[in-house]
Amino acid sequence: MASVLIREAKEGDCGNILRLIRELAEYEKLSDQVKISEEALRADGFGENPFYHCLVAEILPAPGEPQGPCVVGYGLYCFIYSTWKGRNIYLEDIYVKPEYRGQGIGSKIIKKVAEVALDKGCSQLRLAVLDWNKGAMDLYKALGAQDLTEAEGWHCFRFEGEAMRELAGK
Amino acid sequence: MASVLIREAKEGDCGNILRLIRELAEYEKLSDQVKISEEALRADGFGENPFYHCLVAEILPAPGEPQGPCVVGYGLYCFIYSTWKGRNIYLEDIYVKPEYRGQGIGSKIIKKVAEVALDKGCSQLRLAVLDWNKGAMDLYKALGAQDLTEAEGWHCFRFEGEAMRELAGK
Repeated sequence: MASVLIREAKEGDCGNILRLIRELAEYEKLSDQVKISEEALRADGFGENPFYHCLVAEILPAPGEPQGPCVVGYGLYCFIYSTWKGRNIYLEDIYVKPEYRGQGIGSKIIKKVAEVALDKGCSQLRLAVLDWNKGAMDLYKALGAQDLTEAEGWHCFRFEGEAMRELAGK
Repeated sequence: MASVLIREAKEGDCGNILRLIRELAEYEKLSDQVKISEEALRADGFGENPFYHCLVAEILPAPGEPQGPCVVGYGLYCFIYSTWKGRNIYLEDIYVKPEYRGQGIGSKIIKKVAEVALDKGCSQLRLAVLDWNKGAMDLYKALGAQDLTEAEGWHCFRFEGEAMRELAGK
């Protein structure tokens, strides 16, 4: 039987990661929002001071099966900082191809991110979830996460595009 | 008259920054949550791969005034990553001492963060605000930010402490 390996992404995975990013955006009917390129993913994740880190879930074929390993999911994260608790991890994206769901691959990815977090001395793992995505919300809660918007009233704010240029006076 | 300088924090500012972090937490009646030390702020912000960056607001005395410059506010941020838009900035904390409010120092700090963001090729500036903090919410909206929790239903989630260790299986 095929097995799943969760491993750090390599620069050569960027093409596969970009395909999964687009797949997720298409599923959300928001694929026109994806402006990222494979070149940007390579430059920003694999230089001296990477802007992000990424894990991929790879299906390893059983012995004798003809096809090579196949990337079916990813988890992309960054290191952030709490002025109260110090080093933190922010999980920006987690995705598993629909035909590979229900096998615990998403949980394996998030568990691996938590391992990395502890290894790096991080005390928190944060993420943002859409309120209509009940499946994801229930999974994170079942895994022990707290909904801080519900519990404490935190709202996510964003400056973007023209608003950001105006703010910067440019 | 005294003037305000917004500048990058230096390692020697960490003592002042920690005092402001504690002041903010006291104001929020949550000072028992502050576990950070000056040593951690020095190590995590001023090494080869810093976990955060910080701006400070410094009051420069008028010529002839006896006292030296005085740090009265800070903005602490990290670089994060959007799989749709690429490089982003996350503003973790922004604070100005109560007796220096109403002079636009907070706006100056956030404008400077937006300048840094554009200089580094970031397309978004994100932050989180408590829903009872109407003053801050109104300021960010007036400056052009969008409330994504209100507009799109994003909720902030967090794993911490025992939940995070369990998740990592440690």
